[in-house]
Amino acid sequence: MARVAVDAMGGDDAPKAIVAGAAQASLDTGAHIVLVGERAAIEAELALVKHDASRIEILEADGVIPMDAKPREALDAMPDASLPRAARCVAEGGADALVSAGNTGAVILSCARHFERIAGVRRTALAAVVPTEQLRGNKNDPFSLLLDVGANIRVEAGDLVSFALMGAAYSRVISKNQNPSVGLLNNGSEATKGPEEIIEAHARLKALACINFIGNVEGVDISRGTADVVITDGFTGNVVLKMLEGVSETVMRIARHAYEDRLSWKLALGLLKGGIQQLKSVTDWQQYGGAPVLGFQHICIKAHGRSGPRAIRNAIRVAENCVKNELMAKIQRDVESVQ
Amino acid sequence: MARVAVDAMGGDDAPKAIVAGAAQASLDTGAHIVLVGERAAIEAELALVKHDASRIEILEADGVIPMDAKPREALDAMPDASLPRAARCVAEGGADALVSAGNTGAVILSCARHFERIAGVRRTALAAVVPTEQLRGNKNDPFSLLLDVGANIRVEAGDLVSFALMGAAYSRVISKNQNPSVGLLNNGSEATKGPEEIIEAHARLKALACINFIGNVEGVDISRGTADVVITDGFTGNVVLKMLEGVSETVMRIARHAYEDRLSWKLALGLLKGGIQQLKSVTDWQQYGGAPVLGFQHICIKAHGRSGPRAIRNAIRVAENCVKNELMAKIQRDVESVQ
Repeated sequence: MARVAVDAMGGDDAPKAIVAGAAQASLDTGAHIVLVGERAAIEAELALVKHDASRIEILEADGVIPMDAKPREALDAMPDASLPRAARCVAEGGADALVSAGNTGAVILSCARHFERIAGVRRTALAAVVPTEQLRGNKNDPFSLLLDVGANIRVEAGDLVSFALMGAAYSRVISKNQNPSVGLLNNGSEATKGPEEIIEAHARLKALACINFIGNVEGVDISRGTADVVITDGFTGNVVLKMLEGVSETVMRIARHAYEDRLSWKLALGLLKGGIQQLKSVTDWQQYGGAPVLGFQHICIKAHGRSGPRAIRNAIRVAENCVKNELMAKIQRDVESVQ
Repeated sequence: MARVAVDAMGGDDAPKAIVAGAAQASLDTGAHIVLVGERAAIEAELALVKHDASRIEILEADGVIPMDAKPREALDAMPDASLPRAARCVAEGGADALVSAGNTGAVILSCARHFERIAGVRRTALAAVVPTEQLRGNKNDPFSLLLDVGANIRVEAGDLVSFALMGAAYSRVISKNQNPSVGLLNNGSEATKGPEEIIEAHARLKALACINFIGNVEGVDISRGTADVVITDGFTGNVVLKMLEGVSETVMRIARHAYEDRLSWKLALGLLKGGIQQLKSVTDWQQYGGAPVLGFQHICIKAHGRSGPRAIRNAIRVAENCVKNELMAKIQRDVESVQ
């Protein structure tokens, strides 16, 4: 049984949303859950929701890393806060995977401090799911995977190759996509275009038999969904991800404005409900649960700060799937095979 | 009178669309137009459209740089093609500004080969207009300016400072925006975040009195329109610009699909017509004419390859405005003032 340590105190609506999501997961996933945080607060929330008590345990922690704190300083000052305590729990064998909706930088730094990197992986990556038009994998997932989205500002060619191997392995395990296509984000399609590290990564990826490398992809390919896995450095990935947030925010605002403003538009939006529902389900990150931190010997799922119970439950399920399907061992094998 | 050299043969629908746009500009702008290309072809197109013959002259050129050619090789092989011939015409004083809808790389390289750079500008930039929600400037333009979008893959801090000065000057002249806000695209809002060159550029921009620097902006700010001018390196700018193309392409396709599919959606889209028109006018690049190449002693407006007559006419008008308002001298003064 996969054991998932959950940072019960991290997130905009913690511990309420986190505990409720964990309670749900205790009922409808196969995971055993270690809720890490202030016992009294967790117990109070647990008392309010249906859960399987045999699948949940509580690990006491002291305080919480604030959402907007500087990661290094906060973790130095609060070594026993819920997040570092949960990471230590995994590192010491008390659980197999980590889930947190807390401070992103602090989540990655906690992993870096307590988990070993996979041999051959020089830099770990934060991956994000990006909504696309095209469905993919046996599960018809309407998103592709983008990494790195912020763990590394600048990277070398070898890092991009590791990201490709890790992203493809994750897609195989989580999206049940047997042969995920991998694209390298660049400012042109030609193999000789772009910054040096991308040209070199292109050449190295092209030579790998274990990856379905489709070459460079461009900005326009991101929402088209040309590739199942899109590889980039953390600076560019961060800009891309936040741009997507901005675009959907704008569309929503225009729609809301229209809805308030005009009777004819109200009618129209009523008629369009099916279509809007469809669009919403494509852009609804809640159902995907979170962003995996890849490259350590343990999986960590970083759930969005705004996560509600459903997003937390899904993050726990994804973490469970990673453990059950031995994602880390698979990444290890792939990385070894190309060295 | 501003004299504009127009590459009559470059563009997906050249020379027809280019000549028709120039003909329109001869009637409703103050520009004198030098159409550069194959005389017979240009005359045949001119005969089909209303124009002011006293404002148009033809400069013979030999051949055209193909849209997908490698810039350096093509320009070496065809030194008298319409594009390099038009650039030489400007460099030699036969016109004040250049407009081309041809091969982007070849347009920038032609400028680099024939125009002098403004003293103190180490790297020139290609700027693009990006549709935003917010209106700005005395002309209520629904777009901000993004640069660089592809002339330079990697940049230094000083280049980002030049881009800021040039973009702000362009916004003052073209959008009649007296005090344009300038943002630096980064992966976080803090001054100490991001790659080294961005941290340094942030510090230098903050110290400049002649710029309304609002600090870092993030991906989410691009469609919000937080800044009038957004500064970035050419690699990131290219990804951002092509992502925006991809997003609007996706929205259009979904709308078209919906329209074909369902009677209720057809009705709904009919009712929404006003709103869609509004959205379309925001994303319609045709009305903005093109992307300025900034940093040379002469202005060059790179029109989109798919430009129709209206986009070409608008590009000519923008070029005329740059000349009339002495944009290049203003940039020169700003760059000198910060050194």
